[in-house]
Amino acid sequence: MDVPADAMAERYAARAAGMTASEVRALFAVAARPEVISLAGGMPFVQALPSDEVLRVVTDVITDRATVALQYGAGSGQESLKVRLAALMAEQGIEAEPADVLITVGAQQALDLVGKLFIDPGDQIAVEAPSYVGALSAFSVYEPRYLQVPMDDEGLSVDGLEEALAGGARPKFLYVCPNFHNPAGVTLSLERRGRLVEVCRAAGVPIVEDDPYGMLRFEGERLPSLRSLDPENVIYLGTLSKIFCPGIRVGWTVAPAGTTSQLVLLKEAADLCSSNLNMLVAEAWLADRDRWIGTLAELVEVYRARRDACLSALERHFPADAAWTRPAGGFYVWVTVPGTDAKSLLPEAVKRGVAYVPGTAFFADGSGRDRLRLAFCYPPEDAIEEGVRRLGHLLTERSPAGSRAEVG
Amino acid sequence: MDVPADAMAERYAARAAGMTASEVRALFAVAARPEVISLAGGMPFVQALPSDEVLRVVTDVITDRATVALQYGAGSGQESLKVRLAALMAEQGIEAEPADVLITVGAQQALDLVGKLFIDPGDQIAVEAPSYVGALSAFSVYEPRYLQVPMDDEGLSVDGLEEALAGGARPKFLYVCPNFHNPAGVTLSLERRGRLVEVCRAAGVPIVEDDPYGMLRFEGERLPSLRSLDPENVIYLGTLSKIFCPGIRVGWTVAPAGTTSQLVLLKEAADLCSSNLNMLVAEAWLADRDRWIGTLAELVEVYRARRDACLSALERHFPADAAWTRPAGGFYVWVTVPGTDAKSLLPEAVKRGVAYVPGTAFFADGSGRDRLRLAFCYPPEDAIEEGVRRLGHLLTERSPAGSRAEVG
Repeated sequence: MDVPADAMAERYAARAAGMTASEVRALFAVAARPEVISLAGGMPFVQALPSDEVLRVVTDVITDRATVALQYGAGSGQESLKVRLAALMAEQGIEAEPADVLITVGAQQALDLVGKLFIDPGDQIAVEAPSYVGALSAFSVYEPRYLQVPMDDEGLSVDGLEEALAGGARPKFLYVCPNFHNPAGVTLSLERRGRLVEVCRAAGVPIVEDDPYGMLRFEGERLPSLRSLDPENVIYLGTLSKIFCPGIRVGWTVAPAGTTSQLVLLKEAADLCSSNLNMLVAEAWLADRDRWIGTLAELVEVYRARRDACLSALERHFPADAAWTRPAGGFYVWVTVPGTDAKSLLPEAVKRGVAYVPGTAFFADGSGRDRLRLAFCYPPEDAIEEGVRRLGHLLTERSPAGSRAEVG
Repeated sequence: MDVPADAMAERYAARAAGMTASEVRALFAVAARPEVISLAGGMPFVQALPSDEVLRVVTDVITDRATVALQYGAGSGQESLKVRLAALMAEQGIEAEPADVLITVGAQQALDLVGKLFIDPGDQIAVEAPSYVGALSAFSVYEPRYLQVPMDDEGLSVDGLEEALAGGARPKFLYVCPNFHNPAGVTLSLERRGRLVEVCRAAGVPIVEDDPYGMLRFEGERLPSLRSLDPENVIYLGTLSKIFCPGIRVGWTVAPAGTTSQLVLLKEAADLCSSNLNMLVAEAWLADRDRWIGTLAELVEVYRARRDACLSALERHFPADAAWTRPAGGFYVWVTVPGTDAKSLLPEAVKRGVAYVPGTAFFADGSGRDRLRLAFCYPPEDAIEEGVRRLGHLLTERSPAGSRAEVG
């Protein structure tokens, strides 16, 4: 992305000054080379979808509903899909009326619209540290200041948030990913969920709850969404990208009515409406409950096996002083290797045939040098094993502690 | 859209203060009632597409390329589609490399990205008066001041622009729709095109050239695009919504390299990437040149006949003092009825079974009370005749001049 500026550059808005290619996106090109095992991008394993069923759904939509599928749609989205999404959320204990749903181009567009609705330049917003790199990109366009709230194995530190609020912080909103966090892999505990909604409500801080992975649980009990604990103070973001496929770009928001109507206006200004073809495909997919629930169960099996392969390979190949999270769902393991600079190590890792995302990408303040994110969603188990082995050897060469195998 | 504000409203950004439902979008619900003939929304007549061919294209994409179609794609868009779009533009005399193309969610998203890249709050931007309502919505999110440049039957007044520049105006960019203008129906003359690019280059004002209708020409010679006259100072916006279908939401930008790379970053922050399914469908549609060129020729015939029906009905039914443009392509006729308030008349018009868009929607400063836009793209000729008749009767009742038929 090192393209020289052209004459138009002197007319750009202030926000353009800080814009550089995201580390995650720039990596996609590198990691696409066949000899590189990519543990970088979080691409769902769409090959696990039943292709004959998908073909049937798409064919039915074009055969039976072409004039709708090919036409402009409503700015807030197809009503019939909103009904299906409300039913899907009900499966997770989230009550929502179809009228509360705004359909977006993936959950990423929802992040953009939320940033647009709440952030004036210089406003403070609160995010977890670390946080989803795409959320930071979306919000940064609106030039906020970030309040970073620390995390541990139980997710966001509510104590940390309370401390900041007691110190005078007044963020426009708190952005949080409670289930199988990207990149941290951890899940916000039940006790903290209750306290978090209370603290935020008392302080008048709306919560933006991003839940792309909530239905990809490998073990344990589902925990209540923040939205279900305090509907009036939470904007919930969902997506079909991980439980069906990202290629149709269907995400959604659920928010209080006044906020939904503002988000709809911003959605219309941003792209008029989402693709009717895509929305009808999504609706047709969700119309058969046995099918989508069954497919989801198969996806969970695929990702669970890959998570297991990743954790087991980490035990075997990573340095003795490395530490990592043990996700109960989702796509990511978050690794700490003391003394390592994961960003400067990346070119050598790619040369040796393995890619990951350096931890610095996930912190608004650029900290996290000794962290890295491994995505276990896309490569099969043997490739995960080999990728972690390559990376472990590289890290061990650089680490004074030696590998676990060697010290064990 | 009259939803009461919720508790989150006090946290909104300043831009939310001025946001209200667009008059065009709000009308869609009203005009959807079957007894109302809608001359309001600019919905393409997708029923004219060869449905068996569309079905084949979509089926082939899912059959042959499912793992790509269902997956995330590149932020700037599918390379194979960029190649097709470069070839499509070459048919119109626009030279562009595939690398210069950024694929967006319709041209509307391109408007949002351009506004985002150039506008700081309070910046001046120049627009035609009248201007596409969706462009005004997209830009207004970034809180500009508008410099309105007058138009006449030859399009934007370059004299008017020069005068404003001489008076000290320094707009961040000029937004212009040179072909079959929405809503004005007029086309920028050849002589003015040459002068416009010179004036803008000399003043350092980039041009944003929106060209959704350029290939829907009913008669006369194609005129050179502004982009082809000055590639370094023009951002060209294209779309497949009118020459194929809007349901796949495929638009694009062509810009100087540095600006394209900034727009790609903003696109990634806004929604990560466009839908691969949609982009592959678009590519497959354009892969057969005879098919898309042939379909386009059929669409042009459909819209020409409807334009003729509209102009002929206006002659018969509208008041003697009304005036209107005679578009050589596109979707719209722009009507002036002196002394009328088109906005306050609309509810009565809808009651009598015809809808249009009041002129005030198309002016940044809310002028244009005695103007209205008629879209002839969607209803068949007999419905256009009947809709114009109903509206003409209503206007004639209100107008001291009486109808043409009566005075003729």
